[in-house]
Amino acid sequence: MMSDPTALNTRDACVAADAADPLAGFRDEFLLPEGVVYLDGNSLGALPRAAGERAREVLEQEWGRDLIGSWNKNHWFELPTRIGGKIGALIGGGEGGCVATDTTSINVFKALGAALRIQREDHPDRRVIISERENFPTDLYMVEGMVEFLDDGYELRLIDDEASLADELAASGDDAAVVMLTHVNYRSGRMWDMTGITRRAHEAGALMIWDLCHSAGAVPVDLTAAAADFAIGCTYKYLNGGPGSPAFVWISPKHLERAEQPLSGWWGHRRPFDMAVGYAPAEGAAKFLCGTQPILSLATMEAGIDIALRVDRSALREKSLALTSLFIALVEERLAAHPLTLITPRDEASRGSHVSFRHPEGFAVMKALIAEGVVGDYREPEVLRFGFTPLYVGYADVWDAVEAFRRVLDEELWRAPEFQQRGAVT
Amino acid sequence: MMSDPTALNTRDACVAADAADPLAGFRDEFLLPEGVVYLDGNSLGALPRAAGERAREVLEQEWGRDLIGSWNKNHWFELPTRIGGKIGALIGGGEGGCVATDTTSINVFKALGAALRIQREDHPDRRVIISERENFPTDLYMVEGMVEFLDDGYELRLIDDEASLADELAASGDDAAVVMLTHVNYRSGRMWDMTGITRRAHEAGALMIWDLCHSAGAVPVDLTAAAADFAIGCTYKYLNGGPGSPAFVWISPKHLERAEQPLSGWWGHRRPFDMAVGYAPAEGAAKFLCGTQPILSLATMEAGIDIALRVDRSALREKSLALTSLFIALVEERLAAHPLTLITPRDEASRGSHVSFRHPEGFAVMKALIAEGVVGDYREPEVLRFGFTPLYVGYADVWDAVEAFRRVLDEELWRAPEFQQRGAVT
Repeated sequence: MMSDPTALNTRDACVAADAADPLAGFRDEFLLPEGVVYLDGNSLGALPRAAGERAREVLEQEWGRDLIGSWNKNHWFELPTRIGGKIGALIGGGEGGCVATDTTSINVFKALGAALRIQREDHPDRRVIISERENFPTDLYMVEGMVEFLDDGYELRLIDDEASLADELAASGDDAAVVMLTHVNYRSGRMWDMTGITRRAHEAGALMIWDLCHSAGAVPVDLTAAAADFAIGCTYKYLNGGPGSPAFVWISPKHLERAEQPLSGWWGHRRPFDMAVGYAPAEGAAKFLCGTQPILSLATMEAGIDIALRVDRSALREKSLALTSLFIALVEERLAAHPLTLITPRDEASRGSHVSFRHPEGFAVMKALIAEGVVGDYREPEVLRFGFTPLYVGYADVWDAVEAFRRVLDEELWRAPEFQQRGAVT
Repeated sequence: MMSDPTALNTRDACVAADAADPLAGFRDEFLLPEGVVYLDGNSLGALPRAAGERAREVLEQEWGRDLIGSWNKNHWFELPTRIGGKIGALIGGGEGGCVATDTTSINVFKALGAALRIQREDHPDRRVIISERENFPTDLYMVEGMVEFLDDGYELRLIDDEASLADELAASGDDAAVVMLTHVNYRSGRMWDMTGITRRAHEAGALMIWDLCHSAGAVPVDLTAAAADFAIGCTYKYLNGGPGSPAFVWISPKHLERAEQPLSGWWGHRRPFDMAVGYAPAEGAAKFLCGTQPILSLATMEAGIDIALRVDRSALREKSLALTSLFIALVEERLAAHPLTLITPRDEASRGSHVSFRHPEGFAVMKALIAEGVVGDYREPEVLRFGFTPLYVGYADVWDAVEAFRRVLDEELWRAPEFQQRGAVT
């Protein structure tokens, strides 16, 4: 309904849209700084009030008072599977295939390791791993590290779009082992067709791994419907888990019994407290656990996940598209005189929940914009990135952000010496 | 001075020893539950007051108010190297070879991966990894996972003591690649001679990895003097970092330039924010980082490390030995009628900071003892384990713990049905 941006052509209309927003109530569940339009929830989500309460409880009562007893009494041991189960529900993962643990990078290694091992057993000649050149770099770095470490003829090949993926799959033929893509691109906000791409990978005999860092909590994901094989992702963006909160890894039920991952630590053992010599993997997704988890970060992050579980996901997607479409429309209408290039798809079906524009002075522009109270971020090269978390960003925020953006460009505020100095943007 | 336990043969003498204890002031820096003698700091250290303050600051101000800007403004990015530097200082690691990150298990994989890679380049036939049968299981599980994943002729062989290590090194000959031992055994409390063992490993052409989980913050460690190659360890035991707080990995300066580890994520990249295609390792120990760290847990743990840095390490060791020797002496004198078997070395030079006794009903005995307010823990098989953190355990605590232990055994409190039920001990 709201994704017709032409309906919101005044600030009053935006305020009215906020008043009618079925998700408006969620904003009060977050603590946001005064006087700031926060458009960087795609990098670090805001603090849920309930997370603050939970952190204090873990700190003072569970660690401080119950001490070692908390592993059982306060269910610390269960946190990775319990929270993982909740994340699994958010991404259409079905029952029991997901654990919350470690980092996205580490989980890439586990999922890729498990996928390559399945291929090694069934099709030992399949040694090509396909990913996207514009993938978030750590995904590629982890593949590189694994390829070099295995030193056994594995190879990473990079594609750019659906057409070059099709070409590469055709060229790889019976060598294609794994396709690993990030569902929503971190820079452009472009979203792959998960179901269609997974089908193509499978037709070529490859297993499919999806990175959901910019998807979970932001766009509809149904791994089961897409017939995906593995997925990984972070929780500190749209799931508002807190800075560096543990990531997740999901294994399709079709692989769960068989899958084995290389980081076989004691938390993934069937009976960790037998202290037995000889690794025996746990049942289910728990075998994708490895070492002792950072409980303070892990327990605190559950508050953000619990909010995400209460949100109507159709309403969330609808509002996300309305916000991003409104932002694109207002920027293009009101900032038309400036050298801005939209790099996010106009096609809503191919768009995540953030919008990026290139500007030749992107770095200084973003610094100036932050000084005006609009917090987005900057990614090389020249990319201004604006994330719209529908839980706490409203239509009037979009209006105000565009007005600040216009001031920064019209009045050339970005020319101020303090914004010209390179370094960190925030 | 205090390690002559015969001097403390009354509770009053223990109270007097506490009053004269140069480390007594540290106890007030921790929040400990009322009415409990906490002898499990070797499993989960107590909560430093400063950690609580730091956690609230990170939560409310850094995450809640400064949001994404905290990565730079509040130095989140620097936490792994800054805190790692402090830990390096505690373990005689010299400058810059240590980072605080991930879990002990993951860091085993990195250190072992780096060591095997060095050997692969210099001595490709060295494929034998030697560890101890009684090692903490996750260390062995991680080796197993790596050996299976590499699928390239690597082999794990297990030894029991110095003699069988010597035999195995002789038998392995030019095949020995790595010796990986845990400095202080998690169950028995036995401590290896770090310098002597490292020399033997090197004489056999193997690289030496030390696991310091039960050493860091508890016993003197000088990795440089021992000429060790790599070390790993956790921070949530004697360093009081909090439940599951990030672990550490140390790389000897002699390997730092050359070492490459397989988990090559973006935090270990030379310029992570260039978002460049192609992994280029950072300078120094930072290349042993991988993914985004759990900031709430990581920042909070620094408080415990800072306390450890202020402690006189000779005084710490002296008190640790006095406490463990006193405990052994009192148990053997006052509980002589009971079937208790000391499995911790009497020789102080071979003892860490905990003491373990076997008892045929160990599980029920520990449950009963915890009900009496003395929190130790239980490890299969039949082992009652008592950890003595000199920062917050005193001589009168030892006396009281032994008295409770005596009550549990003399009055057979452990026979109560609620203590007979198997399951978690705490």
